[in-house]
Amino acid sequence: MPLPITTRRGDTLRYDVERGVVEILDRRRYPREHVFVACTDVAAVAQAIEAMIVQGGPPLAYVGGYGLALAARAQRGRRREEVRAALHAASERILATRPTADDLQAVLAGALATGDTALADGTDVEQAIARYVRGEVERGDRVSEACGRAAAALLQSGDTILTHCFAGAALNWMLYTAAVEQHKSLRLFCNETRPYLQGARLAAAAGVEIGVATTVITDNMAGYCFNRGMFTKYVTAADRIAMDGSAANKVGTYQYAVLAARHAVPYYVLGYDGPDPSTPTGEVIPIEVRDPDEVLCFNGTRVAAEGACGFYPAFDVTPPELITAIVTDRGVWEARAIAAYHDMPAPAAPA
Amino acid sequence: MPLPITTRRGDTLRYDVERGVVEILDRRRYPREHVFVACTDVAAVAQAIEAMIVQGGPPLAYVGGYGLALAARAQRGRRREEVRAALHAASERILATRPTADDLQAVLAGALATGDTALADGTDVEQAIARYVRGEVERGDRVSEACGRAAAALLQSGDTILTHCFAGAALNWMLYTAAVEQHKSLRLFCNETRPYLQGARLAAAAGVEIGVATTVITDNMAGYCFNRGMFTKYVTAADRIAMDGSAANKVGTYQYAVLAARHAVPYYVLGYDGPDPSTPTGEVIPIEVRDPDEVLCFNGTRVAAEGACGFYPAFDVTPPELITAIVTDRGVWEARAIAAYHDMPAPAAPA
Repeated sequence: MPLPITTRRGDTLRYDVERGVVEILDRRRYPREHVFVACTDVAAVAQAIEAMIVQGGPPLAYVGGYGLALAARAQRGRRREEVRAALHAASERILATRPTADDLQAVLAGALATGDTALADGTDVEQAIARYVRGEVERGDRVSEACGRAAAALLQSGDTILTHCFAGAALNWMLYTAAVEQHKSLRLFCNETRPYLQGARLAAAAGVEIGVATTVITDNMAGYCFNRGMFTKYVTAADRIAMDGSAANKVGTYQYAVLAARHAVPYYVLGYDGPDPSTPTGEVIPIEVRDPDEVLCFNGTRVAAEGACGFYPAFDVTPPELITAIVTDRGVWEARAIAAYHDMPAPAAPA
Repeated sequence: MPLPITTRRGDTLRYDVERGVVEILDRRRYPREHVFVACTDVAAVAQAIEAMIVQGGPPLAYVGGYGLALAARAQRGRRREEVRAALHAASERILATRPTADDLQAVLAGALATGDTALADGTDVEQAIARYVRGEVERGDRVSEACGRAAAALLQSGDTILTHCFAGAALNWMLYTAAVEQHKSLRLFCNETRPYLQGARLAAAAGVEIGVATTVITDNMAGYCFNRGMFTKYVTAADRIAMDGSAANKVGTYQYAVLAARHAVPYYVLGYDGPDPSTPTGEVIPIEVRDPDEVLCFNGTRVAAEGACGFYPAFDVTPPELITAIVTDRGVWEARAIAAYHDMPAPAAPA
């Protein structure tokens, strides 16, 4: 039983250092089509992130990081100050794409620091940044597996799990570990997650590939199902976790958390590598507001009545009192205690 | 300022007694197109109801009633027992289309009784049934106006109203009375209401036509908006109200009622002509489960991952403790007291 392509990030995004190309699986068309989009400059990378060709906090952060490698390549042979200025400008452009998830900020900061070191050492900046990002991809894969395996331990045979949007590689690892390795009988319900349908496409494809019975519902049906006692667990990712245990995630996450609490269903956040130390509370997390046309249209055709406006907040914030636990690569945490994550030593990388 | 076409039911559905045709505005294509579908037999009427060419408890009930007129026409000249048997068979077929709303049962029972009387009297059965249904349409229009005007009195200038699905003619009257006649400044937010998008199409079109600032959101965004304090009222219709004050309505209604209660936003049900005396509690209301393909596809194209199942419960039931008030043609009721509606005399019809 292979894991879905969305499990190992290197399978869906890569940097070709020979040609200077960032290649990205087009997540708007997956799983119907497996098409890779090639970006050869910073503008194309930024647009790919904005257009949701890549989505999910860590994957889009890696693509953004590889964008800095492209920026360095374009400056090859220029003076150190010019290269540094170009890297910072590229970082600003890419940072502006999507403000809510913290991974992009972290990876870009690391890529800039790597570039500075390479400039000081006189080594190849493009290669240094590409190597750094590849290392982050590998670290992220280890985080995802550890997080998913920790979450699997929370599942019982007979569970029916509601999920919203696509919780990424850790969701795959959770389902794979519990269903395939531990032979737990699971059912997965995916909210379709309008307007981009990440639930109907990405999460559902992962469930089907792993062999879990997978059902898609529209975003207005979870309340009915909770009320009928159909769900025993609610599981999502988080685009950013604040130190107070608040979790920002795809818009809708909050309303299903409210329903889970009302119906006494545990809500687990797949928290990957924990909270952002520079985000004290959920209130300070910036919520991206996207183009209203993405709500008013479907596949490019307007579906809403003429004259109506659209509104598209892309994320919401769930307070810690609605979260049963945050599951990370360093174990399972009470939401209000998540700040202590950073007091634990990071798991050692494999030799 | 004219009222939207969805206000007077005779504008969107009619029986042509000369030709024997039921004509129905195609609500799947409205407001983009104003196309009428013609039905000339019972099978076509039943299919039009099943296919959502007409939707909403009262409108589809009137179409069903006119279907019995078509059945009578097809039996013209036959023996009384044959006509009666054909009418009952037609009623059974049409009743089987959609089980949740009570209007269809009421109108078909009335049409059958009218047919029986006409058979006993030896008068034209088709004309008697068509006249009865037209009377119900007119009564329903009066109910809608009275209900909508009573709801308008509950709105304040500055209100931002969330609505789900399309609450029908009473929603139009509520908005028209409050915004146009009473000059209250209102904003309307419409959940798009997947999979048929009645919110993005029908409710939004009504808001725009009446001149209320109208915004469409996807079905996962209301929680964000409640949490930000953006809504001051939540208003829906009900396909069936039980005597205990429970209200069945388009799936999703319940989850937004839970959010409204959490955020202390009043939830008003537009209850038209009150509860169904033969439905004691919300638990006994049958919930229609529709074809899963309607969830898995969009405009005939599959959007969900291959291998995933769909699930489409079309309605849910909101308990009375989540309903601030039920607004009817006989005034505003505490949900738990709605059974007393039937102790009040019906408002007199205009001379």
